[in-house]
Amino acid sequence: MELRLDRIPRSVELARAGDEILFSYVDERLLPEELLVRQTGSWEEVVDAIKTLAVRGAPAIGLAGAAALVLWVSRAESLAAIEEVAEKIATARPTAVNLRWGVERVLEAAKAEAATERGPACVADALYALVSEMQEEDERVNREMGSNGAQLLPSGARVLTHCNAGSLATCYYGTALGVVYAAAEQGKIERVYADETRPVGQGARLTTWELARAGVPVTLICDNMAASLMAQGEVDAVVVGADRIAANGDTANKIGTYGVAVLAREHGIPFYVVAPTSTIDPTLPDGSGIVVEQRDPSEVLPRAIDGVEVWNPAFDVTPARYITKIVTERGVFDPADILGE
Amino acid sequence: MELRLDRIPRSVELARAGDEILFSYVDERLLPEELLVRQTGSWEEVVDAIKTLAVRGAPAIGLAGAAALVLWVSRAESLAAIEEVAEKIATARPTAVNLRWGVERVLEAAKAEAATERGPACVADALYALVSEMQEEDERVNREMGSNGAQLLPSGARVLTHCNAGSLATCYYGTALGVVYAAAEQGKIERVYADETRPVGQGARLTTWELARAGVPVTLICDNMAASLMAQGEVDAVVVGADRIAANGDTANKIGTYGVAVLAREHGIPFYVVAPTSTIDPTLPDGSGIVVEQRDPSEVLPRAIDGVEVWNPAFDVTPARYITKIVTERGVFDPADILGE
Repeated sequence: MELRLDRIPRSVELARAGDEILFSYVDERLLPEELLVRQTGSWEEVVDAIKTLAVRGAPAIGLAGAAALVLWVSRAESLAAIEEVAEKIATARPTAVNLRWGVERVLEAAKAEAATERGPACVADALYALVSEMQEEDERVNREMGSNGAQLLPSGARVLTHCNAGSLATCYYGTALGVVYAAAEQGKIERVYADETRPVGQGARLTTWELARAGVPVTLICDNMAASLMAQGEVDAVVVGADRIAANGDTANKIGTYGVAVLAREHGIPFYVVAPTSTIDPTLPDGSGIVVEQRDPSEVLPRAIDGVEVWNPAFDVTPARYITKIVTERGVFDPADILGE
Repeated sequence: MELRLDRIPRSVELARAGDEILFSYVDERLLPEELLVRQTGSWEEVVDAIKTLAVRGAPAIGLAGAAALVLWVSRAESLAAIEEVAEKIATARPTAVNLRWGVERVLEAAKAEAATERGPACVADALYALVSEMQEEDERVNREMGSNGAQLLPSGARVLTHCNAGSLATCYYGTALGVVYAAAEQGKIERVYADETRPVGQGARLTTWELARAGVPVTLICDNMAASLMAQGEVDAVVVGADRIAANGDTANKIGTYGVAVLAREHGIPFYVVAPTSTIDPTLPDGSGIVVEQRDPSEVLPRAIDGVEVWNPAFDVTPARYITKIVTERGVFDPADILGE
């Protein structure tokens, strides 16, 4: 199979069309059936896209949140309501710290610009430049993580991943899958096993599609098959992304990650978390303070059954002791040292 | 919620209608949307029902296999081909030992009857009586296992189960869920958590439906949520069925069972296997000899994605060291002592 990383689309992008600032995003609800790039000038549409998982993945929703605030500023007559709008965007989903981080970077820049008494249009120009930088930074950081993480993988690596921490979860290239791509460019990847990742199927619909499109050999498994695959000696490493990392290294990520981490340790398989520094929340001493989003039961059971309840947390928290290394753009860390240098 | 065990249907039953012997079965492919009981005189339809999972669950397919052979005999002009037909039925699915066990009980009785030089009609009468006994035995054995297993559960028990080892997997009452029903009759069950059990969804479609119908509080979770639920202290015991138990206690059961067993041990939660003695295969020294059925990729991924492979084993093997106790109709055993008595 030929490696074709150029075939992976940009999942989120703020761009100019004439005088207008527009946000474009791959509508990931439609994949793998249809690759549709939507373009909008409406900040509310971006918030809705985040809430409905059209745009998802911690780094991607961080960028989308930042972009949403720029869209609002670029169409505002005054910036009086900016704090209120920023809060609405930042709370579209509760778990990934990158969302608030992205929005606040734009909010702070807006306040600094506004203090110079320029009008909204002028502020929007400055914010547009900032978000453009953030986009470039995202790709650069992903490539750095990829390079850092690829060193951890053996030649002929068979990698298991959970959810989608790929290019589709970032602006481009991905976090966990960035490591896979970097290792694939070095000829080190034999195969990626993708957990389907119920109930939304980010693995089944997105990771498989993205890897196959890029020319990386990929096998889909149900979440409950990972243990058996590990027992058969078919997994050399587990590589996942993160939505929030506490100061002690405890990591929130897509529901099911914790179980995979326990299984990896039981089978002597290294478990790597790959995430940019923006995913680390130094204000949280440990994972017990991470708010886990509960989502609608219909994601699990589209047609309700009389008398049957559903539990549908979107994330879980993996204690640092199950994590072999955390890979960021700054290097490879023991989880306990994630705040250190 | 009122306990109403009488509301659970019989899932498989051989019965007479006038001169004819007919097999009736709940078509479990249609649940929970529709409760449809099909009736047939065709042994090939029964084999097809087993292959397509209309009838599933080790004890139920054991009975269905036995019934299929009786249907063939009752319509045969001579018994010359009986070994060949028996083999076709016994190999409809490879993993559950109960299927071969059921077919061979009928085959041996048929040979004994035929040796007395009676005609097929007369032999069929004797076999019908045997299968009727097997049906009664199944329910009796399930109730005995239920009673044996219920003693293991604490008062106010919150039980996690995987797949469907319920009344729908047997003639009536169930194995793992038989334990739940017996404990519920003693007022000891607070709640059952049902793993959805991808890819076929026996937990999502069957266990939830059966428990809710019987009045047992039930919450559906995705397979990948079990670890998080355990970490939150919400599970007092795991109770599952089995498709084949080797002489050393290694147990084949629905894919995903092994992972749940590892997670249970990591969280200090007892892991109980509940199965009739007919599920034990004394000819296998350990689980390495158990043939695991590989099923069609379309069960996991209904619409194939270009370049994406799928791994779809129907079962996994849980090593005996992860199993706290095995419950049979004879009592409660350490896995290593399952052949003793």
